[in-house]
Amino acid sequence: MLYEGKAKKLFKTDDSKVLRVEYLDQATALNGARKDSIAGKGSLNNQITSHVFEQFTQMGIQNHFIGKISNHEQLIEALDMIPLEVVVRNVSAGSFSSRLAITEGEPLAFPVLEFYFKEDDLDDPIINEDHIKVLQIATEQEILTIKQEAHKINQALITLFHKINIRLIDFKIEFGKRADGTILLADEITPDTCRLWDEKTNDHLDKDVYRRDLGEIVPVYREVLDRLEKIIH
Amino acid sequence: MLYEGKAKKLFKTDDSKVLRVEYLDQATALNGARKDSIAGKGSLNNQITSHVFEQFTQMGIQNHFIGKISNHEQLIEALDMIPLEVVVRNVSAGSFSSRLAITEGEPLAFPVLEFYFKEDDLDDPIINEDHIKVLQIATEQEILTIKQEAHKINQALITLFHKINIRLIDFKIEFGKRADGTILLADEITPDTCRLWDEKTNDHLDKDVYRRDLGEIVPVYREVLDRLEKIIH
Repeated sequence: MLYEGKAKKLFKTDDSKVLRVEYLDQATALNGARKDSIAGKGSLNNQITSHVFEQFTQMGIQNHFIGKISNHEQLIEALDMIPLEVVVRNVSAGSFSSRLAITEGEPLAFPVLEFYFKEDDLDDPIINEDHIKVLQIATEQEILTIKQEAHKINQALITLFHKINIRLIDFKIEFGKRADGTILLADEITPDTCRLWDEKTNDHLDKDVYRRDLGEIVPVYREVLDRLEKIIH
Repeated sequence: MLYEGKAKKLFKTDDSKVLRVEYLDQATALNGARKDSIAGKGSLNNQITSHVFEQFTQMGIQNHFIGKISNHEQLIEALDMIPLEVVVRNVSAGSFSSRLAITEGEPLAFPVLEFYFKEDDLDDPIINEDHIKVLQIATEQEILTIKQEAHKINQALITLFHKINIRLIDFKIEFGKRADGTILLADEITPDTCRLWDEKTNDHLDKDVYRRDLGEIVPVYREVLDRLEKIIH
Protein backbone atom coordinates (compact mmCIF):
# COMPACT_ATOMS: atom_id res chain seq x y z
CA MET A 1 0.00 0.00 0.00
CA LEU A 2 1.23 3.46 -0.94
CA TYR A 3 -1.21 5.73 0.82
CA GLU A 4 -4.45 5.65 2.80
CA GLY A 5 -6.76 8.63 2.41
CA LYS A 6 -10.10 9.37 4.05
CA ALA A 7 -12.17 7.43 1.52
CA LYS A 8 -9.70 5.34 -0.49
CA LYS A 9 -6.46 3.37 -0.42
CA LEU A 10 -3.75 3.53 -3.07
CA PHE A 11 -1.66 0.49 -3.99
CA LYS A 12 1.37 0.02 -6.25
CA THR A 13 1.05 -2.43 -9.15
CA ASP A 14 3.65 -4.35 -11.16
CA ASP A 15 3.74 -1.37 -13.51
CA SER A 16 5.41 1.62 -11.81
CA LYS A 17 3.28 3.96 -13.94
CA VAL A 18 0.00 2.46 -12.73
CA LEU A 19 -1.67 2.52 -9.30
CA ARG A 20 -4.67 0.59 -8.03
CA VAL A 21 -7.26 2.53 -6.04
CA GLU A 22 -9.62 0.87 -3.63
CA TYR A 23 -12.68 2.92 -2.69
CA LEU A 24 -13.56 2.43 0.99
CA ASP A 25 -16.93 2.03 2.69
CA GLN A 26 -16.10 4.99 4.84
CA ALA A 27 -17.27 8.58 5.31
CA THR A 28 -15.53 11.34 7.23
CA ALA A 29 -16.32 14.93 8.08
CA LEU A 30 -14.61 17.81 9.90
CA ASN A 31 -11.22 16.90 8.39
CA GLY A 32 -11.46 13.33 9.69
CA ALA A 33 -12.62 14.13 13.24
CA ARG A 34 -15.92 12.36 12.48
CA LYS A 35 -15.69 8.97 10.77
CA ASP A 36 -18.26 6.29 9.96
CA SER A 37 -18.32 2.99 8.17
CA ILE A 38 -21.02 2.95 5.47
CA ALA A 39 -21.50 -0.33 3.56
CA GLY A 40 -21.78 0.16 -0.21
CA LYS A 41 -20.46 3.73 -0.37
CA GLY A 42 -17.03 2.79 -1.77
CA SER A 43 -18.48 0.83 -4.64
CA LEU A 44 -20.96 3.59 -5.55
CA ASN A 45 -18.23 6.25 -5.60
CA ASN A 46 -15.90 4.07 -7.65
CA GLN A 47 -18.64 3.55 -10.24
CA ILE A 48 -19.71 7.21 -10.30
CA THR A 49 -16.20 8.64 -10.70
CA SER A 50 -15.36 6.00 -13.33
CA HIS A 51 -18.35 7.09 -15.43
CA VAL A 52 -17.44 10.77 -15.07
CA PHE A 53 -13.77 10.28 -15.96
CA GLU A 54 -14.69 8.10 -18.97
CA GLN A 55 -16.93 10.90 -20.20
CA PHE A 56 -14.09 13.38 -19.69
CA THR A 57 -11.69 11.23 -21.71
CA GLN A 58 -14.23 11.13 -24.56
CA MET A 59 -14.50 14.93 -24.36
CA GLY A 60 -10.73 15.44 -24.44
CA ILE A 61 -10.33 16.43 -20.77
CA GLN A 62 -7.09 14.69 -19.81
CA ASN A 63 -7.23 12.73 -16.56
CA HIS A 64 -5.51 9.93 -14.64
CA PHE A 65 -8.26 7.30 -15.08
CA ILE A 66 -7.28 4.03 -16.79
CA GLY A 67 -10.13 1.66 -16.00
CA LYS A 68 -12.45 0.17 -13.42
CA ILE A 69 -11.33 -3.36 -12.47
CA SER A 70 -14.04 -4.23 -9.95
CA ASN A 71 -16.99 -2.51 -8.32
CA HIS A 72 -14.77 -0.88 -5.71
CA GLU A 73 -11.41 -0.76 -7.53
CA GLN A 74 -9.90 1.14 -10.46
CA LEU A 75 -6.52 1.61 -12.09
CA ILE A 76 -5.07 5.08 -12.48
CA GLU A 77 -1.94 6.65 -13.87
CA ALA A 78 0.72 7.28 -11.19
CA LEU A 79 1.26 11.05 -10.98
CA ASP A 80 3.19 13.47 -8.84
CA MET A 81 0.23 14.96 -6.96
CA ILE A 82 0.02 18.74 -6.55
CA PRO A 83 -0.97 19.45 -2.91
CA LEU A 84 -3.89 21.71 -3.80
CA GLU A 85 -7.61 21.31 -3.40
CA VAL A 86 -9.09 23.29 -6.27
CA VAL A 87 -12.67 24.32 -5.56
CA VAL A 88 -15.07 25.75 -8.15
CA ARG A 89 -18.32 27.30 -6.94
CA ASN A 90 -21.37 28.13 -9.05
CA VAL A 91 -23.77 28.70 -6.16
CA SER A 92 -23.05 29.83 -2.59
CA ALA A 93 -23.02 26.93 -0.11
CA GLY A 94 -21.25 25.49 2.91
CA SER A 95 -18.15 27.21 4.29
CA PHE A 96 -18.21 29.78 1.46
CA SER A 97 -21.67 30.84 2.51
CA SER A 98 -20.75 31.21 6.19
CA ARG A 99 -17.29 32.79 5.65
CA LEU A 100 -18.60 35.51 3.33
CA ALA A 101 -22.21 35.79 4.54
CA ILE A 102 -23.69 34.94 1.13
CA THR A 103 -26.92 33.00 1.66
CA GLU A 104 -26.68 29.31 0.76
CA GLY A 105 -28.36 28.73 -2.59
CA GLU A 106 -27.58 32.17 -4.03
CA PRO A 107 -26.19 31.78 -7.57
CA LEU A 108 -22.79 33.46 -8.09
CA ALA A 109 -22.33 35.94 -10.94
CA PHE A 110 -19.48 33.79 -12.31
CA PRO A 111 -17.77 30.52 -11.27
CA VAL A 112 -15.58 31.35 -8.26
CA LEU A 113 -12.31 29.45 -7.96
CA GLU A 114 -10.54 28.77 -4.66
CA PHE A 115 -7.29 27.05 -3.74
CA TYR A 116 -6.73 25.21 -0.48
CA PHE A 117 -3.30 23.97 0.60
CA LYS A 118 -3.79 20.21 1.04
CA GLU A 119 -2.01 19.73 4.33
CA ASP A 120 -3.94 17.92 7.07
CA ASP A 121 -1.72 19.29 9.86
CA LEU A 122 -2.66 22.83 8.84
CA ASP A 123 -6.36 21.99 8.31
CA ASP A 124 -6.13 22.68 4.55
CA PRO A 125 -5.99 26.50 4.75
CA ILE A 126 -7.39 28.61 1.91
CA ILE A 127 -4.51 30.24 0.01
CA ASN A 128 -4.00 32.62 -2.88
CA GLU A 129 -1.76 32.46 -5.95
CA ASP A 130 1.14 34.27 -4.22
CA HIS A 131 1.05 31.61 -1.49
CA ILE A 132 1.08 28.83 -4.11
CA LYS A 133 4.18 30.37 -5.70
CA VAL A 134 6.02 31.17 -2.47
CA LEU A 135 5.36 27.65 -1.14
CA GLN A 136 6.64 26.36 -4.51
CA ILE A 137 3.50 24.27 -4.96
CA ALA A 138 3.17 25.39 -8.58
CA THR A 139 4.59 27.98 -10.95
CA GLU A 140 2.64 30.90 -12.41
CA GLN A 141 2.21 28.95 -15.69
CA GLU A 142 1.06 25.82 -13.88
CA ILE A 143 -1.48 27.83 -11.87
CA LEU A 144 -2.83 29.23 -15.13
CA THR A 145 -3.18 25.71 -16.59
CA ILE A 146 -4.94 24.49 -13.44
CA LYS A 147 -7.38 27.43 -13.52
CA GLN A 148 -8.18 26.89 -17.21
CA GLU A 149 -8.70 23.15 -16.72
CA ALA A 150 -10.86 23.74 -13.62
CA HIS A 151 -13.15 26.08 -15.56
CA LYS A 152 -13.35 23.62 -18.48
CA ILE A 153 -14.19 20.77 -16.07
CA ASN A 154 -16.85 22.95 -14.43
CA GLN A 155 -18.58 23.56 -17.78
CA ALA A 156 -18.41 19.85 -18.64
CA LEU A 157 -19.84 18.85 -15.24
CA ILE A 158 -22.63 21.44 -15.34
CA THR A 159 -23.70 20.02 -18.73
CA LEU A 160 -23.38 16.38 -17.61
CA PHE A 161 -25.33 16.83 -14.38
CA HIS A 162 -27.98 19.02 -16.00
CA LYS A 163 -28.78 16.09 -18.31
CA ILE A 164 -29.78 14.11 -15.20
CA ASN A 165 -31.67 17.02 -13.60
CA ILE A 166 -28.95 17.80 -11.10
CA ARG A 167 -27.63 21.28 -10.37
CA LEU A 168 -23.88 21.49 -9.80
CA ILE A 169 -23.43 23.80 -6.78
CA ASP A 170 -19.67 23.39 -6.26
CA PHE A 171 -16.94 20.76 -6.38
CA LYS A 172 -13.36 20.01 -5.34
CA ILE A 173 -10.76 18.56 -7.68
CA GLU A 174 -7.06 17.75 -7.51
CA PHE A 175 -4.38 17.68 -10.16
CA GLY A 176 -1.23 15.66 -10.70
CA LYS A 177 1.84 16.05 -12.88
CA ARG A 178 3.47 13.59 -15.29
CA ALA A 179 7.28 13.30 -15.39
CA ASP A 180 7.15 15.45 -18.56
CA GLY A 181 5.38 18.25 -16.66
CA THR A 182 1.90 17.71 -18.12
CA ILE A 183 -0.76 18.60 -15.58
CA LEU A 184 -3.92 16.52 -15.55
CA LEU A 185 -7.03 15.92 -13.49
CA ALA A 186 -6.60 13.25 -10.82
CA ASP A 187 -8.39 12.11 -7.64
CA GLU A 188 -12.18 11.63 -7.94
CA ILE A 189 -15.45 13.29 -8.87
CA THR A 190 -18.20 11.87 -6.68
CA PRO A 191 -20.96 13.04 -4.32
CA ASP A 192 -18.15 13.16 -1.72
CA THR A 193 -16.41 15.93 -3.66
CA CYS A 194 -19.33 17.75 -5.33
CA ARG A 195 -22.43 19.48 -4.03
CA LEU A 196 -25.28 18.21 -6.19
CA TRP A 197 -28.84 19.46 -5.74
CA ASP A 198 -31.88 17.96 -7.43
CA GLU A 199 -33.04 20.59 -9.96
CA LYS A 200 -36.71 20.25 -9.01
CA THR A 201 -36.68 19.61 -5.24
CA ASN A 202 -33.30 21.16 -4.25
CA ASP A 203 -32.70 17.91 -2.31
CA HIS A 204 -29.04 17.30 -1.46
CA LEU A 205 -27.67 14.40 -3.52
CA ASP A 206 -24.22 14.54 -1.94
CA LYS A 207 -22.14 14.22 1.22
CA ASP A 208 -23.99 17.08 2.92
CA VAL A 209 -26.60 14.39 3.69
CA TYR A 210 -23.90 12.87 5.92
CA ARG A 211 -22.27 16.11 7.12
CA ARG A 212 -25.65 17.58 8.12
CA ASP A 213 -27.31 14.36 9.28
CA LEU A 214 -30.10 14.59 6.71
CA GLY A 215 -30.52 10.84 6.29
CA GLU A 216 -28.84 7.81 4.72
CA ILE A 217 -26.28 8.53 2.02
CA VAL A 218 -26.25 5.17 0.24
CA PRO A 219 -29.72 5.60 -1.40
CA VAL A 220 -28.73 9.15 -2.39
CA TYR A 221 -25.40 8.12 -3.97
CA ARG A 222 -27.22 5.22 -5.70
CA GLU A 223 -29.72 7.72 -7.13
CA VAL A 224 -26.85 9.70 -8.67
CA LEU A 225 -25.31 6.53 -10.12
CA ASP A 226 -28.68 5.35 -11.50
CA ARG A 227 -29.36 8.66 -13.20
CA LEU A 228 -25.85 8.70 -14.70
CA GLU A 229 -26.24 5.16 -16.04
CA LYS A 230 -29.50 6.09 -17.78
CA ILE A 231 -27.65 8.54 -20.05
CA ILE A 232 -24.35 6.69 -20.44
CA HIS A 233 -24.13 3.88 -22.98
CA MET B 1 -18.58 61.91 14.73
CA LEU B 2 -18.73 59.75 11.63
CA TYR B 3 -17.06 56.54 12.74
CA GLU B 4 -15.15 55.05 15.68
CA GLY B 5 -12.50 52.48 14.85
CA LYS B 6 -10.24 50.48 17.13
CA ALA B 7 -7.55 53.16 17.37
CA LYS B 8 -9.10 56.32 15.94
CA LYS B 9 -12.25 58.39 15.58
CA LEU B 10 -13.35 60.11 12.37
CA PHE B 11 -15.23 63.42 12.41
CA LYS B 12 -16.90 65.48 9.68
CA THR B 13 -15.65 69.02 9.12
CA ASP B 14 -17.29 72.09 7.56
CA ASP B 15 -15.82 70.92 4.25
CA SER B 16 -17.63 67.78 3.06
CA LYS B 17 -14.45 66.68 1.27
CA VAL B 18 -12.34 66.77 4.44
CA LEU B 19 -12.47 64.63 7.59
CA ARG B 20 -10.72 65.08 10.92
CA VAL B 21 -9.07 62.01 12.45
CA GLU B 22 -8.36 61.73 16.15
CA TYR B 23 -5.81 59.07 17.10
CA LEU B 24 -6.81 57.37 20.35
CA ASP B 25 -4.70 56.27 23.32
CA GLN B 26 -6.00 52.76 22.84
CA ALA B 27 -4.65 49.38 21.76
CA THR B 28 -6.65 46.30 20.80
CA ALA B 29 -5.82 42.74 19.84
CA LEU B 30 -7.75 39.66 18.75
CA ASN B 31 -10.12 41.73 16.61
CA GLY B 32 -11.04 43.92 19.58
CA ALA B 33 -11.54 41.17 22.18
CA ARG B 34 -8.57 42.58 24.12
CA LYS B 35 -8.51 46.33 24.66
CA ASP B 36 -6.26 48.61 26.72
CA SER B 37 -5.87 52.31 27.28
CA ILE B 38 -2.26 53.42 26.65
CA ALA B 39 -1.43 57.08 27.30
CA GLY B 40 0.64 58.68 24.54
CA LYS B 41 0.06 56.02 21.87
CA GLY B 42 -2.42 58.03 19.80
CA SER B 43 -0.13 61.02 19.52
CA LEU B 44 2.86 58.87 18.54
CA ASN B 45 0.88 57.09 15.80
CA ASN B 46 -0.54 60.35 14.47
CA GLN B 47 2.98 61.78 14.19
CA ILE B 48 4.48 58.63 12.65
CA THR B 49 1.80 58.19 9.98
CA SER B 50 1.89 61.91 9.18
CA HIS B 51 5.65 61.70 8.49
CA VAL B 52 5.21 58.59 6.33
CA PHE B 53 2.33 60.02 4.29
CA GLU B 54 4.20 63.33 3.77
CA GLN B 55 7.16 61.34 2.42
CA PHE B 56 4.78 59.45 0.12
CA THR B 57 3.30 62.67 -1.24
CA GLN B 58 6.82 63.93 -2.02
CA MET B 59 7.53 60.64 -3.81
CA GLY B 60 4.34 60.80 -5.88
CA ILE B 61 2.45 58.09 -4.03
CA GLN B 62 -1.08 59.45 -3.91
CA ASN B 63 -2.76 59.31 -0.49
CA HIS B 64 -5.56 60.83 1.58
CA PHE B 65 -3.34 62.84 3.98
CA ILE B 66 -3.89 66.61 4.10
CA GLY B 67 -2.08 67.73 7.25
CA LYS B 68 -1.49 67.22 10.95
CA ILE B 69 -3.43 69.78 13.01
CA SER B 70 -2.35 68.74 16.51
CA ASN B 71 -0.25 65.99 18.07
CA HIS B 72 -3.17 63.56 17.99
CA GLU B 73 -5.24 64.94 15.10
CA GLN B 74 -4.93 65.18 11.34
CA LEU B 75 -7.08 66.16 8.36
CA ILE B 76 -7.64 63.72 5.54
CA GLU B 77 -9.51 63.65 2.26
CA ALA B 78 -12.96 62.06 2.58
CA LEU B 79 -13.00 58.92 0.42
CA ASP B 80 -15.31 56.03 -0.26
CA MET B 81 -13.37 53.35 1.61
CA ILE B 82 -12.82 49.96 -0.07
CA PRO B 83 -13.53 47.25 2.56
CA LEU B 84 -10.24 45.43 2.05
CA GLU B 85 -7.21 44.99 4.27
CA VAL B 86 -4.31 44.70 1.85
CA VAL B 87 -1.34 42.94 3.44
CA VAL B 88 2.16 42.82 1.95
CA ARG B 89 4.68 40.41 3.46
CA ASN B 90 8.45 40.41 2.93
CA VAL B 91 9.30 38.01 5.77
CA SER B 92 7.19 35.25 7.32
CA ALA B 93 5.58 36.31 10.63
CA GLY B 94 2.43 36.12 12.71
CA SER B 95 -0.67 34.42 11.32
CA PHE B 96 1.06 33.82 7.96
CA SER B 97 3.77 31.85 9.72
CA SER B 98 1.32 29.68 11.67
CA ARG B 99 -1.23 29.19 8.84
CA LEU B 100 1.39 27.99 6.35
CA ALA B 101 4.04 26.56 8.70
CA ILE B 102 6.77 28.91 7.45
CA THR B 103 9.08 29.75 10.37
CA GLU B 104 8.75 33.32 11.64
CA GLY B 105 11.67 35.37 10.37
CA GLU B 106 12.14 33.44 7.13
CA PRO B 107 12.51 35.87 4.21
CA LEU B 108 10.03 35.27 1.38
CA ALA B 109 11.30 34.84 -2.21
CA PHE B 110 9.11 37.78 -3.31
CA PRO B 111 6.66 40.16 -1.58
CA VAL B 112 3.48 38.18 -0.93
CA LEU B 113 0.20 40.05 -1.20
CA GLU B 114 -2.97 39.08 0.67
CA PHE B 115 -6.49 40.48 0.76
CA TYR B 116 -8.76 40.32 3.79
CA PHE B 117 -12.43 41.26 3.64
CA LYS B 118 -12.76 44.06 6.22
CA GLU B 119 -15.92 42.93 7.98
CA ASP B 120 -15.75 42.67 11.77
CA ASP B 121 -18.78 40.34 11.97
CA LEU B 122 -16.96 37.82 9.75
CA ASP B 123 -13.61 38.27 11.57
CA ASP B 124 -11.97 39.77 8.43
CA PRO B 125 -11.62 36.52 6.41
CA ILE B 126 -8.79 36.13 3.93
CA ILE B 127 -10.19 36.23 0.38
CA ASN B 128 -8.97 35.91 -3.18
CA GLU B 129 -9.54 38.03 -6.27
CA ASP B 130 -12.59 36.02 -7.38
CA HIS B 131 -14.16 36.72 -3.98
CA ILE B 132 -13.40 40.44 -4.33
CA LYS B 133 -15.13 40.49 -7.71
CA VAL B 134 -18.12 38.35 -6.73
CA LEU B 135 -18.67 40.43 -3.57
CA GLN B 136 -18.44 43.52 -5.84
CA ILE B 137 -15.79 45.04 -3.56
CA ALA B 138 -13.66 46.03 -6.55
CA THR B 139 -13.44 45.39 -10.29
CA GLU B 140 -10.63 43.49 -11.99
CA GLN B 141 -9.04 46.81 -13.05
CA GLU B 142 -9.32 48.26 -9.53
CA ILE B 143 -7.72 45.12 -8.05
CA LEU B 144 -4.82 45.53 -10.48
CA THR B 145 -4.37 49.17 -9.43
CA ILE B 146 -4.47 48.22 -5.74
CA LYS B 147 -1.85 45.50 -6.27
CA GLN B 148 0.46 47.81 -8.20
CA GLU B 149 0.14 50.56 -5.58
CA ALA B 150 0.69 48.07 -2.73
CA HIS B 151 3.95 46.85 -4.30
CA LYS B 152 5.10 50.44 -4.93
CA ILE B 153 4.30 51.36 -1.31
CA ASN B 154 6.19 48.28 -0.10
CA GLN B 155 9.34 49.33 -1.98
CA ALA B 156 9.03 52.89 -0.66
CA LEU B 157 8.58 51.69 2.93
CA ILE B 158 11.45 49.19 2.74
CA THR B 159 13.75 52.04 1.63
CA LEU B 160 12.41 54.48 4.23
CA PHE B 161 12.68 52.06 7.16
CA HIS B 162 16.08 50.75 6.05
CA LYS B 163 17.41 54.31 6.40
CA ILE B 164 16.56 54.11 10.11
CA ASN B 165 17.90 50.55 10.54
CA ILE B 166 14.48 48.95 10.59
CA ARG B 167 13.51 45.87 8.61
CA LEU B 168 9.99 45.93 7.18
CA ILE B 169 8.54 42.46 7.82
CA ASP B 170 4.96 43.08 6.67
CA PHE B 171 2.23 45.71 6.77
CA LYS B 172 -1.49 46.28 6.25
CA ILE B 173 -2.91 49.14 4.20
CA GLU B 174 -6.33 50.27 3.06
CA PHE B 175 -7.45 52.17 0.01
CA GLY B 176 -10.27 54.59 -0.73
CA LYS B 177 -11.91 55.90 -3.87
CA ARG B 178 -12.60 59.48 -4.98
CA ALA B 179 -15.92 60.32 -6.65
CA ASP B 180 -14.04 60.28 -10.00
CA GLY B 181 -12.94 56.66 -9.36
CA THR B 182 -9.28 57.38 -8.50
CA ILE B 183 -8.00 54.86 -5.97
CA LEU B 184 -5.56 56.11 -3.36
CA LEU B 185 -3.88 55.02 -0.15
CA ALA B 186 -5.87 55.85 2.98
CA ASP B 187 -5.95 54.79 6.66
CA GLU B 188 -2.56 54.81 8.45
CA ILE B 189 0.98 53.45 8.40
CA THR B 190 2.18 53.03 11.98
CA PRO B 191 3.67 50.37 14.27
CA ASP B 192 0.03 49.28 14.73
CA THR B 193 -0.18 48.30 11.07
CA CYS B 194 3.42 47.27 10.23
CA ARG B 195 5.78 44.68 11.64
CA LEU B 196 9.08 46.50 12.15
CA TRP B 197 12.17 44.71 13.42
CA ASP B 198 15.39 46.40 14.45
CA GLU B 199 17.95 45.43 11.78
CA LYS B 200 20.67 44.64 14.32
CA THR B 201 18.84 43.13 17.30
CA ASN B 202 15.64 41.83 15.60
CA ASP B 203 13.74 43.55 18.45
CA HIS B 204 10.07 44.13 17.69
CA LEU B 205 9.38 47.83 17.19
CA ASP B 206 5.65 47.37 16.60
CA LYS B 207 2.33 46.24 18.06
CA ASP B 208 3.59 42.68 18.55
CA VAL B 209 5.13 44.10 21.77
CA TYR B 210 1.52 44.54 22.93
CA ARG B 211 0.00 41.45 21.24
CA ARG B 212 2.71 39.20 22.70
CA ASP B 213 3.17 40.99 26.04
CA LEU B 214 6.84 41.78 25.37
CA GLY B 215 6.86 45.05 27.34
CA GLU B 216 5.65 48.64 27.09
CA ILE B 217 4.73 49.90 23.62
CA VAL B 218 5.05 53.66 24.18
CA PRO B 219 8.91 53.67 24.40
CA VAL B 220 9.01 51.41 21.32
CA TYR B 221 6.67 53.62 19.23
CA ARG B 222 8.64 56.69 20.44
CA GLU B 223 11.86 55.02 19.22
CA VAL B 224 10.33 54.63 15.74
CA LEU B 225 9.20 58.27 15.73
CA ASP B 226 12.60 59.51 16.98
CA ARG B 227 14.47 57.58 14.30
CA LEU B 228 12.10 58.89 11.59
CA GLU B 229 12.54 62.47 12.76
CA LYS B 230 16.32 62.18 12.53
CA ILE B 231 16.13 61.66 8.76
CA ILE B 232 13.12 63.87 7.95
CA HIS B 233 13.66 67.60 7.59
